[in-house]
Amino acid sequence: MASRSPESAASVAETDGSVQIRHLEVSDREKGFLPLLSQLSACPELTASEFAACFADLAALGDDHVILVAEDSAASAPERRILATGCLFVERKFLRGGGKVGHVEDVVVDAAARGRGLGLRVVRRLVEIAKEVGCYKVILDCTPELRAYYAKCGFVEKGVQMAIYF
Amino acid sequence: MASRSPESAASVAETDGSVQIRHLEVSDREKGFLPLLSQLSACPELTASEFAACFADLAALGDDHVILVAEDSAASAPERRILATGCLFVERKFLRGGGKVGHVEDVVVDAAARGRGLGLRVVRRLVEIAKEVGCYKVILDCTPELRAYYAKCGFVEKGVQMAIYF
Repeated sequence: MASRSPESAASVAETDGSVQIRHLEVSDREKGFLPLLSQLSACPELTASEFAACFADLAALGDDHVILVAEDSAASAPERRILATGCLFVERKFLRGGGKVGHVEDVVVDAAARGRGLGLRVVRRLVEIAKEVGCYKVILDCTPELRAYYAKCGFVEKGVQMAIYF
Repeated sequence: MASRSPESAASVAETDGSVQIRHLEVSDREKGFLPLLSQLSACPELTASEFAACFADLAALGDDHVILVAEDSAASAPERRILATGCLFVERKFLRGGGKVGHVEDVVVDAAARGRGLGLRVVRRLVEIAKEVGCYKVILDCTPELRAYYAKCGFVEKGVQMAIYF
């Protein structure tokens, strides 16, 4: 990341060059948010009302759920697209005196925008937010090939991820 | 697991032999719940009111946060202890049409009660609950040594866990 906003990472959008990192807005459905996610995993289109309902469910979690997006802010308004995204949700525990753990999920960069560091900027902001809201750690799961990528944000390998698909 | 309750895994406690698997109750503070968790990671004691506040915060998440405990139900009431625990929290996503992912966390069995399959019973119940509430997958992170343990519950290795500790 070329520069870091001096303001609160949780509350202030960051613009660096032609791309702005900010919180997801409900209007981002029209800017290609779901097709971007579909580059990561199955993500069928949602109607505007379905999208708004999902957005509201997640927004109701307040600071415990943050979705950041990287928007192509140099384009004229009708042309602006979401180029990258990543999510942080905060898990509360009895461990560590009622501690919090940040989970980074659903990080993806548009295939045509890779190599510009947008994913790293999103992830670094999510890590800053996790620290600001009092998490004692932040974790994520990835494929072995992405170890070096996340190491650039300060992550170190900690264990293995196991899964059951229903 | 020797037997499976025919009733809803989400709503009905399971008793198998001398140990009952049930949801955490606020009175479990007096049954050694926090010292049990401290066998997993740092878990300072909480006062009764701190414990109740943490319990209420998590209970407010409803079906999106479940803590199961295994209680030594053969003991006389004042002697009953929590022998094992595990937690499921449900993450909501835009992916998969507003899909849900279950995260299994904080699984621990009391050192004196290991080898009786209590952890596996807790984890299998958490997996059942994840399926019942509509998760499309359930995931957990563990050390490489525990791969075979979780494989007994149907988990397969999927990726690597990365972490930053603040």
